[in-house]
Amino acid sequence: MNKIKVSVVGGSGYTGGELIRLLLNHPHAEIKQVTSERFAGKSVSKVHPNLRKRTDLKFIPMFELEETDVLFLCLPHKSSSQKISELKLKCKKIIDLSADFRLKDPAEYKKWYGADHPNPDMMTDFVYGIPELHREEMRAATYVSSAGCNATATILGLYPLYKNDLVEKDRTVVEVKVGSSEAGNEHNAGSHHPERSGCVRSFMPTGHRHTAEMIQELSFGNDISIHFSATSIDMVRGVLATCHVFLNSNLDEKEIWKIYRKEYSSEPFIRIVKDSEGIYRYPEPKLLAGTNYCDIGFEKDMHSNRLVVISAIDNLMKGAAGQALQAFNIMNNIEETTGLEFTGLHPV
Amino acid sequence: MNKIKVSVVGGSGYTGGELIRLLLNHPHAEIKQVTSERFAGKSVSKVHPNLRKRTDLKFIPMFELEETDVLFLCLPHKSSSQKISELKLKCKKIIDLSADFRLKDPAEYKKWYGADHPNPDMMTDFVYGIPELHREEMRAATYVSSAGCNATATILGLYPLYKNDLVEKDRTVVEVKVGSSEAGNEHNAGSHHPERSGCVRSFMPTGHRHTAEMIQELSFGNDISIHFSATSIDMVRGVLATCHVFLNSNLDEKEIWKIYRKEYSSEPFIRIVKDSEGIYRYPEPKLLAGTNYCDIGFEKDMHSNRLVVISAIDNLMKGAAGQALQAFNIMNNIEETTGLEFTGLHPV
Amino acid sequence: MNKIKVSVVGGSGYTGGELIRLLLNHPHAEIKQVTSERFAGKSVSKVHPNLRKRTDLKFIPMFELEETDVLFLCLPHKSSSQKISELKLKCKKIIDLSADFRLKDPAEYKKWYGADHPNPDMMTDFVYGIPELHREEMRAATYVSSAGCNATATILGLYPLYKNDLVEKDRTVVEVKVGSSEAGNEHNAGSHHPERSGCVRSFMPTGHRHTAEMIQELSFGNDISIHFSATSIDMVRGVLATCHVFLNSNLDEKEIWKIYRKEYSSEPFIRIVKDSEGIYRYPEPKLLAGTNYCDIGFEKDMHSNRLVVISAIDNLMKGAAGQALQAFNIMNNIEETTGLEFTGLHPV
Amino acid sequence: MNKIKVSVVGGSGYTGGELIRLLLNHPHAEIKQVTSERFAGKSVSKVHPNLRKRTDLKFIPMFELEETDVLFLCLPHKSSSQKISELKLKCKKIIDLSADFRLKDPAEYKKWYGADHPNPDMMTDFVYGIPELHREEMRAATYVSSAGCNATATILGLYPLYKNDLVEKDRTVVEVKVGSSEAGNEHNAGSHHPERSGCVRSFMPTGHRHTAEMIQELSFGNDISIHFSATSIDMVRGVLATCHVFLNSNLDEKEIWKIYRKEYSSEPFIRIVKDSEGIYRYPEPKLLAGTNYCDIGFEKDMHSNRLVVISAIDNLMKGAAGQALQAFNIMNNIEETTGLEFTGLHPV
Repeated sequence: MNKIKVSVVGGSGYTGGELIRLLLNHPHAEIKQVTSERFAGKSVSKVHPNLRKRTDLKFIPMFELEETDVLFLCLPHKSSSQKISELKLKCKKIIDLSADFRLKDPAEYKKWYGADHPNPDMMTDFVYGIPELHREEMRAATYVSSAGCNATATILGLYPLYKNDLVEKDRTVVEVKVGSSEAGNEHNAGSHHPERSGCVRSFMPTGHRHTAEMIQELSFGNDISIHFSATSIDMVRGVLATCHVFLNSNLDEKEIWKIYRKEYSSEPFIRIVKDSEGIYRYPEPKLLAGTNYCDIGFEKDMHSNRLVVISAIDNLMKGAAGQALQAFNIMNNIEETTGLEFTGLHPV
Repeated sequence: MNKIKVSVVGGSGYTGGELIRLLLNHPHAEIKQVTSERFAGKSVSKVHPNLRKRTDLKFIPMFELEETDVLFLCLPHKSSSQKISELKLKCKKIIDLSADFRLKDPAEYKKWYGADHPNPDMMTDFVYGIPELHREEMRAATYVSSAGCNATATILGLYPLYKNDLVEKDRTVVEVKVGSSEAGNEHNAGSHHPERSGCVRSFMPTGHRHTAEMIQELSFGNDISIHFSATSIDMVRGVLATCHVFLNSNLDEKEIWKIYRKEYSSEPFIRIVKDSEGIYRYPEPKLLAGTNYCDIGFEKDMHSNRLVVISAIDNLMKGAAGQALQAFNIMNNIEETTGLEFTGLHPV
Repeated sequence: MNKIKVSVVGGSGYTGGELIRLLLNHPHAEIKQVTSERFAGKSVSKVHPNLRKRTDLKFIPMFELEETDVLFLCLPHKSSSQKISELKLKCKKIIDLSADFRLKDPAEYKKWYGADHPNPDMMTDFVYGIPELHREEMRAATYVSSAGCNATATILGLYPLYKNDLVEKDRTVVEVKVGSSEAGNEHNAGSHHPERSGCVRSFMPTGHRHTAEMIQELSFGNDISIHFSATSIDMVRGVLATCHVFLNSNLDEKEIWKIYRKEYSSEPFIRIVKDSEGIYRYPEPKLLAGTNYCDIGFEKDMHSNRLVVISAIDNLMKGAAGQALQAFNIMNNIEETTGLEFTGLHPV
Repeated sequence: MNKIKVSVVGGSGYTGGELIRLLLNHPHAEIKQVTSERFAGKSVSKVHPNLRKRTDLKFIPMFELEETDVLFLCLPHKSSSQKISELKLKCKKIIDLSADFRLKDPAEYKKWYGADHPNPDMMTDFVYGIPELHREEMRAATYVSSAGCNATATILGLYPLYKNDLVEKDRTVVEVKVGSSEAGNEHNAGSHHPERSGCVRSFMPTGHRHTAEMIQELSFGNDISIHFSATSIDMVRGVLATCHVFLNSNLDEKEIWKIYRKEYSSEPFIRIVKDSEGIYRYPEPKLLAGTNYCDIGFEKDMHSNRLVVISAIDNLMKGAAGQALQAFNIMNNIEETTGLEFTGLHPV
């Protein structure tokens, strides 16, 4: 099999670095170019020190980008949509890891992003990037837009319940605990170690933009609310979404097991984690660092119709680069787990 | 002023150690005895190494306990209620830091603790230990039962809203992020550092016993639900409660400010923390380590009637020993902040 | 007793904040003014959030500084020496927390700082700020220069050995493990949480400037070497100095105990920590956060003449603001421990 | 190529778990059995939760062990030497990850382990397990004994200097900073999270047993001393060895570069890390979690003949399971990097 030629646009950030790491180990992909305006001319391994002795790639400026098979866009938000018309001429397929093409509805975009979309005509050209929901569309897709990390954890956790219409529509509360890598590699006063270390910081109690994606993917034609909050903790990688949903009928845990099993039993990257003993009875992000897994667990409240669904991912993997590579495999008819086999470490 | 003589029953745990630390610096209290069966005969500073060079106290076994003015009970849960009849003969006043006498209703106790209360006749003899709610009762009290740490953070965060009947009764969801000291000083497989470090662990998604205290203190005669979950994170001290309540009328943030200010403006240990800029815009437990503060903030969701209330404490201080000492001051007509002046550190 | 009026020049950094915290709780000191060019006009508690509800002080620009009794200088290095001639007109006494006046010898300054001292005439006007070594000089001093944090931990650990000429002169190796607050509150690429978290970073394997102070204070007229390295770890506050010295005679641990006890037994802020059992057998910085203690322990190598001396402090306290306040007390004939009574927390 | 059949004796600990993880992904190895007395009958993934959905293996008791090609022994120290006579009948080759067969000299064993070796006749049958030093012997070996983690980091860091006789023999001081996984998976009072979190603990200032291995491998017929200390920090995986050696001739950094390059340039798992700019100028263990790399850097002291050599590994990988698998590959004529390709994560 000929290797598929790929380039990474905007490769100096955390998501770009993770993607380069994965692509270097992918048997059917070959990295042609990696762009970075800031680091053009410098070695990729200067910026991503885990890649020392693993690649001789150097960053190039974007204007030197050549034609290739697949482009991965790891640009800052708003930048993708401004450059997309030009970039799509350079390649056959695009996987965009920014937030620009996740939403389908310009009105929703404006509601959550506070401005008109710069390129509304292309909004529906992109397949929303969670393979477990859109695998068939991806097989034929030219454009895929990777999902937000918090959205990925939440949507995968709740999808079987919403799809089967088991949830009271206006009551769901979701709180994610997130690590510092989610905010990217730009330092600021709040990311300074003495301030960020040990924090339990309500950085977005309301109004988080990923909420729009959750509503888009979970509404199934209904009018739903997701009451979402995000709290930063002293962790680098990882998202844990704790989702409080209220069941509209009296299901017990065995019945809920069946619903999740039916939806996910053949999914290679989803594990139902719900043990009655041991240390790791529910999903934990630290076990997932470097993996493409989404671990999902749940517990029914004995005193009410609340079901607590717990969902964990590595935000840079299943929440970004891993998800994008999974889409790449599907779009190119490659075995879906290729390049994503890492098991995760224990202890860590 | 003569010093009040106090003894600590069960002084080898984290709560006991914290109490001893505070009492050693209290100008109007004198520690007479500290019991520990396990460490009887050993120096207190062997177990609590921060007290090196600060005290010559040695642990005694409980049977050597002499009469004193005030007893602090830092015994394991269930142990206080079994020994209370005997212990109350030794002193004028008791402050119990266990969970045994927090609830007033034997049926609620059985519902949440899964067994009959060993001493139901005394359940109503105790004042529930949050001074901000029960200060006047405390002044005349013989028995005070300190509140649970998660309950303290949650109740103080939500009290002004429930008291003023502003909240939809069945919808509140509360999620606390807690540190490892909350589980006490007994090591186990789950507290082993390689497993506990970096964890984001859903240790009690439903069914947490502190829920019963929240309902008792916030119901004001109504039938309410608190949908509570607790998640352990990589932190030693601290609780952050993120409380999602749904307002039953259309209040804006200014009006909510007024409600909190009215209730808490003269409280020495409550600070409303809600800044529009800076790193610490909302409460954070790390700033509170060693202090008796409860910091409270809130944010109104622009897209719904949800109000997110954020409340932070040090679980060993305002959530245990600090709260108990505050009660001690009130019960003994001492200036309420005495011995509780520590400001907290920054950075930390 | 009339309160002594003090002002803090450069009060927005970590050292300044710590000093303000201590001074606010000091019974015989009163803060008159706090300067900060960057935050002039803003509340002190905006920058130091642990001081919320504890002070109404606002920062002023330096040109508004009025006359006062004592000035604490918390300026960046080099800034103190440039402004000292002007500042000394405003006050009776100065305690400088920068590195500018620690060394007495202009040649040594040039060797380690790579430039001529801007104000060499004043270099010998300052008493070196470790009270345990220079208490008597401090009582009469007009100018005191606080010692470097790494220097403080190392010097206090080794002083009894060097003073008594027990150490081979060229062989001592000292390695400190330090937290992130040591580098101050300016964020940079290396202090960005995802990069700084979990680090074990050889930030200064050789050439650390504090070495010059160690040599100055420990040489006692001899030509000595201190082979010093500093490693950053994932900690905010604290220094642990591990000092490998080679004894020039065959002392056993009991004899070493005697030497330390003779030197330090009446020191209020030094504790010898050396237990044969328990968790905290040797000094640990985390127990010292917020305290002014220097804990010192040692272990003799059975297989050689090496003695490992272990010394721990809180870099912002005994290594900066606490040490400065201790000097302030001595200079003003106040009980030396005043305002420095905090015990430290456990667990933490 | 037929798969090589391997069994893991003592597979429930951290080292055993890591080895199972690696073997499951190894294209030329097949795990036949994994023993654990304590967990016999339970799923391997119950104990090693990162292996969920990756293996159906169950633990067996040791008496059910069948014949196989290669045995990996992950038994507690002393246990290997007691069982070796029996175990060697079950297989063609053994790789022992315990400390029992690292030393060649019974007198040295007694000196450092405080007892006679239980099986002195077999001590010289084992090849010491660092491939970079003993690759040729390994190719023909029947028995290999993996090196201690601290010894591995130190020996690899210093080997080129000692081999070329560049170091003063009695002056080397080595201090390692280690994580909590080094002590294994048995919980105790000191590993309890509230006590172990944030620690900088001098757990072995002198007398560490790994010193004996360092002397054995670095002496080259000379009488040398390694003055070794170990400090635990708040980290799970990783060793950073800071080695202070004193050069016996006046080498500059370029000459030292050449010496290291000559020795290590063709080594697949050794990287010289010494950058003049950037965040990661020297080796850091966090970049190595899950990898088999040993990163080595150095800095020459401008003020003396001291050279500081810095060496980092993942203690469970290059310091245990990874090193063992590298030996396995060599012993079985498999490409040396097979199954050890993981790059490491950034950020993490």
